Amino acid sequence: MSELEYQEGRTELDALGQVALINRLTDDFAPVNESTVKGVGDDCAVVGQGKTKTLVTTNTLAEGIHFDMMYTPLKHLGYKAVAVSLSNIAAMNGTPRQITVSVAVSNRYSVEALEELYAGIRLCCQRYDVDLVGGDMNSSRSGMVLTVTAIGEVDEEKIAYRSGAKLHDLICVSGDLGSAYSGLLILEREKVTYQANPNFQPDLDSYDYVLERFLKPEPRMDVVHKLAKSGVVPTSMIDVSKGLASELLHICKASDCGCEVYEERLPIDYQTTRVCSEMSQNMLPVSNALNGGGDYELLFTVNQKDYDKVKDMEGIHIIGHITEQGSPVVMVTPQNSTITLTAQGFRD
Amino acid sequence: MSELEYQEGRTELDALGQVALINRLTDDFAPVNESTVKGVGDDCAVVGQGKTKTLVTTNTLAEGIHFDMMYTPLKHLGYKAVAVSLSNIAAMNGTPRQITVSVAVSNRYSVEALEELYAGIRLCCQRYDVDLVGGDMNSSRSGMVLTVTAIGEVDEEKIAYRSGAKLHDLICVSGDLGSAYSGLLILEREKVTYQANPNFQPDLDSYDYVLERFLKPEPRMDVVHKLAKSGVVPTSMIDVSKGLASELLHICKASDCGCEVYEERLPIDYQTTRVCSEMSQNMLPVSNALNGGGDYELLFTVNQKDYDKVKDMEGIHIIGHITEQGSPVVMVTPQNSTITLTAQGFRD
Repeated sequence: MSELEYQEGRTELDALGQVALINRLTDDFAPVNESTVKGVGDDCAVVGQGKTKTLVTTNTLAEGIHFDMMYTPLKHLGYKAVAVSLSNIAAMNGTPRQITVSVAVSNRYSVEALEELYAGIRLCCQRYDVDLVGGDMNSSRSGMVLTVTAIGEVDEEKIAYRSGAKLHDLICVSGDLGSAYSGLLILEREKVTYQANPNFQPDLDSYDYVLERFLKPEPRMDVVHKLAKSGVVPTSMIDVSKGLASELLHICKASDCGCEVYEERLPIDYQTTRVCSEMSQNMLPVSNALNGGGDYELLFTVNQKDYDKVKDMEGIHIIGHITEQGSPVVMVTPQNSTITLTAQGFRD
Repeated sequence: MSELEYQEGRTELDALGQVALINRLTDDFAPVNESTVKGVGDDCAVVGQGKTKTLVTTNTLAEGIHFDMMYTPLKHLGYKAVAVSLSNIAAMNGTPRQITVSVAVSNRYSVEALEELYAGIRLCCQRYDVDLVGGDMNSSRSGMVLTVTAIGEVDEEKIAYRSGAKLHDLICVSGDLGSAYSGLLILEREKVTYQANPNFQPDLDSYDYVLERFLKPEPRMDVVHKLAKSGVVPTSMIDVSKGLASELLHICKASDCGCEVYEERLPIDYQTTRVCSEMSQNMLPVSNALNGGGDYELLFTVNQKDYDKVKDMEGIHIIGHITEQGSPVVMVTPQNSTITLTAQGFRD
């Protein structure tokens, strides 16, 4: 009776990356509604008929895949689930207004545990002036799956798609890169130690920054506000969820261009460097920045005319520029050699 | 390290129903955005600043809870996941325009299996002129969790909330009730037989109607269109996802009223009656209608002035009327006794 397992011609999910799989599955969905401005393929869908467009984005966090209950406080998890979707609204240069939250949860969780989760959801909503307007609560066979849909607004002239980068545009990124992944490395290390010896008390105090970066990322709405205040509309934008390399590849593919970024320009916090040196002699901080993911910083391009406006913007780093159609996506090292970037780390 | 299991003061999830739990978790989320017209507590959230409002609704189907892969063809599952969310848009008297789909899925599933799922999603989108505009694809530790968010539009003057029913309004329902649950009963029966004897070939041909009602429900957009064409704006509306009793209770609670429905007026298909008689002497078709759920028909109230417009509307049944504040929700039997309705069947 089951159609589940095909004996012949079975293609394993691992054979395709997430983006390739989504593309394969949704390729022949042609929009029919006038109000569908942008469908699959950017940080958000863009819908609506007026000058102010509605942004919609949906993100799922699944236990055992995106989070490990061993080291994820539920309040942080609730906060992060919201933050991740708000980050997608920010990446379209928009303002989040509402969310819906769907929770599928096994009876291993108590009502009190869900209250902790919702305390985190509420905190993030309050911090970013977002209203929880719906969703549902369901049983699951095992673990927890959290899906947050965020709704936002943006003036149609200010939408920053991935596809708008132009030759010679400057490439900018906010904050620092690789710290969230460094936090994850620490948590995984302590977990292994704890599993070997349950009496072990992990000492996490000195890792506050990288841990918070992983467990409780912030959507960079402050960057969206700063850009608006300076009158800068990014020509393209994306949030750094999978690592800089992956996001640069997305922008260059969507914009049909190449790019060069300079290794020495990549913003890497000293604590990321410290964690890397603790972990292994061979672990390079720049690898965490390129392939680590989870930073939820904003990566965007601006026209060169906006150079003066962005060069002194606090927390914004100009890391490179867009090159012509057909060029590769490369990082230039301090020794002036070039490394062609591919998406590693998280499969993509 | 884990905050998961509270030793003291632990309240099991089963101790509360879904609605009570959602209310407890979301009670203190006060909307702050002007564009949030209606938050948690109806079939959809209502957002936006113009005369045309945006409707948003999110629904999850989880393997082992909402569907059983033993007897759920993936194409039907995809169709149903979309249909359930579109039904919520219909229940606000709105028109669906876009959906996002989030899938969390274990590697037990193949790419081909997901293609089947998306074939069903596409079919439902095409049938109801809805665009798939986003979502994500994630791994899960076990089974499949599908979350669909639907976005719709509605003229603000035509929104049908649950809360608008007024004294003496007529209560109407579309289609027939209890058939979806009868389909589920058949599938469960055949599953048990199959598990006892895997060589057994289930004979499902004679149950086509009830099986389709369960496996592939339709959002009643045709009813929304008929009402619009006749110039009828329901005073309240809800879709029948959990059973007539539960939905009547929702409308009466939200509208602060009671109601009377007449048992002999409840639309019950003869195949529902046949399944009940096959199953057990004691199984009453009316119980399936009241408590079975899954029919996704529309339950709505209209002002008495609209009686002439609805009385001959094809597939619409007038089953009772609204009674005054403080009155119970009752069903009147053919013998003229009254039964006070409570939500049974699915926990609510």
